[in-house]
Amino acid sequence: MNDLKIKIPTLLIDEVKCKANIKMMIDKAERHDLVLRPHFKTHQSLKIGQWFKDFGVNKITVSSLLMAKYFSQEWSDILVAFPTNINEIETINELAKTIKLYLSVENVESIKFLSSQLKSSVNIYIQVDVGYHRTGIDPNNISLINDILRMVDQSDKLKFVGFFAHSGQSYTSRTPEDIKQIHFEGLQLMSGLLKHYPFAKISIGDTPTSSIAEDFSGVDEIRPGNFVFYDLMQHQIGSCEISDIAVAMACPIVAIHNDRSEIVIYGGGVHFSKDRLEDKEGIIYGRVVEEQDFGWGHVVQGMYLKSVSQEHGIVSVPQEMIKTYSIGEHLIILPVHSCMTADLMKKHQRILA
Amino acid sequence: MNDLKIKIPTLLIDEVKCKANIKMMIDKAERHDLVLRPHFKTHQSLKIGQWFKDFGVNKITVSSLLMAKYFSQEWSDILVAFPTNINEIETINELAKTIKLYLSVENVESIKFLSSQLKSSVNIYIQVDVGYHRTGIDPNNISLINDILRMVDQSDKLKFVGFFAHSGQSYTSRTPEDIKQIHFEGLQLMSGLLKHYPFAKISIGDTPTSSIAEDFSGVDEIRPGNFVFYDLMQHQIGSCEISDIAVAMACPIVAIHNDRSEIVIYGGGVHFSKDRLEDKEGIIYGRVVEEQDFGWGHVVQGMYLKSVSQEHGIVSVPQEMIKTYSIGEHLIILPVHSCMTADLMKKHQRILA
Repeated sequence: MNDLKIKIPTLLIDEVKCKANIKMMIDKAERHDLVLRPHFKTHQSLKIGQWFKDFGVNKITVSSLLMAKYFSQEWSDILVAFPTNINEIETINELAKTIKLYLSVENVESIKFLSSQLKSSVNIYIQVDVGYHRTGIDPNNISLINDILRMVDQSDKLKFVGFFAHSGQSYTSRTPEDIKQIHFEGLQLMSGLLKHYPFAKISIGDTPTSSIAEDFSGVDEIRPGNFVFYDLMQHQIGSCEISDIAVAMACPIVAIHNDRSEIVIYGGGVHFSKDRLEDKEGIIYGRVVEEQDFGWGHVVQGMYLKSVSQEHGIVSVPQEMIKTYSIGEHLIILPVHSCMTADLMKKHQRILA
Repeated sequence: MNDLKIKIPTLLIDEVKCKANIKMMIDKAERHDLVLRPHFKTHQSLKIGQWFKDFGVNKITVSSLLMAKYFSQEWSDILVAFPTNINEIETINELAKTIKLYLSVENVESIKFLSSQLKSSVNIYIQVDVGYHRTGIDPNNISLINDILRMVDQSDKLKFVGFFAHSGQSYTSRTPEDIKQIHFEGLQLMSGLLKHYPFAKISIGDTPTSSIAEDFSGVDEIRPGNFVFYDLMQHQIGSCEISDIAVAMACPIVAIHNDRSEIVIYGGGVHFSKDRLEDKEGIIYGRVVEEQDFGWGHVVQGMYLKSVSQEHGIVSVPQEMIKTYSIGEHLIILPVHSCMTADLMKKHQRILA
């Protein structure tokens, strides 16, 4: 059980599962004649980026200009799927000079600013809101879209590409039918836009809808990110099987409390993040899986991360099993939200090949 | 409003408030004849550590061996207030050689392991559980305590110092009376131990009890950490005033949605953490404050961080105020849990002096 020699909390990445997830999404995009522009905010890793490259992927999505700068070392076609932060104009100009940069806008102020400050060409997506209500323009607000397009046209540095959307409300789904319904509503709104702007590219696709949907009418590009790892939240949503989850945290056991049948691990909110989900046991922060040669297997029934503080995690253990664990061993735990966990664990990762 | 020239999410540290918080706790410790061994997991900064040094503090607490190693550059008396992770024996031996190291134990397995593997002397605190039930030995379990003490005695490398406790349940308090009651129960349990082990040192003290309590009978040392910054959670608990909070996040405004009276900021779960609290508005992740020369002032009524995703934050704004904000400005937001926010923002901090 201790072949991994885990000294401190470590993110384990199962290369086989991870590559299978990548291949699955590439096949899906090919089947539907879609460009796959995967979101790299999940792994934030040049190494895993290379696995995508090996499959022929050459366009990516990121969620900040800092991330774009990081990936611009090896990638030359990057969409920043985040409302343009005009305060980072220096980074924008630096990137626009060297790569094919796509920015997202949803207001005239940003477009005005970019028009006057850009030194190289930038491609523009207009973000529309297809029901998540986090960001993006109402796709029925044709007058605002036209205002933006007019300003884009007047600039010799800006080039309008199309519309993009993120159906983040799919994360509240619990069945494939829910996911497909949300996806369908997004497609309807996008096809409404295509009637006004038939030349526009359409880019959509969070992990739940990209994993489950089979109708991509009118869509040019999908941008799922989380699927590369998946996690317990995606499993609860219905996007994946537990066996598809390609990352897990290995955490040393530092204390065992027989009386309340709990194990204390070195592994807390600064490692897992405090993302949580509600399941049959109440709020949980992770699930323990069986260790196997070269990775991990099934979920250990009844064993879950019940709370996290800064560095501590408390694992609930079935009473009959508590005696089988010892101080100095480790537990392997599937995270609730792999994007957040991987962001925290950038420096302490291990790839299991 | 934009004198700070905030380009990306930045943790602002108000040096005056921070030093006042440090001074307040130093005065309190002096008044009660206590050693102040502040917990440095909150700021994790050598620079802020220096402010403590300037006030004469020379002993600190941390929550991991990695943190002990970091601070051992400038500190030579460090308690790791976390169940000893025996898998890090190399780090333990490295530290024990150069500094006065205090470890926490709560089981015989760790003591056995340390006895056989230590190369230099280490001071041992036994952690007892005074009601938080996260970690520590039941203080009534005298037989286990005696087992540990016997093994400590048999080792020429281990030196028993005393008992320490963390009343983390104080975080559920909402009034000074609740906090004092929890503190009192802890003192009772510790004084019970002193009857058995009159030579033992007693170390206690989370931020709520250290801020509020005035009875420290039998206590030798307090170890609060969060008080250096405080935060909205501590304010809700009743440990501090809003005006004592010494850190705030400055986040660029990237989108404004008049229709739903919301501002989208660049600043999400990877900046604030996903720690949250329930208040009159429901779940909140932060509160907006007024910007002032050299810092910030009052909370802007009705303006709070209502949700965070990886990089986005959504701020709810009173309808009549939404028109006063513009893209490219920034908001200043008090965090819910400053320890978690500061951990995430180590690389992007600015001290306002």
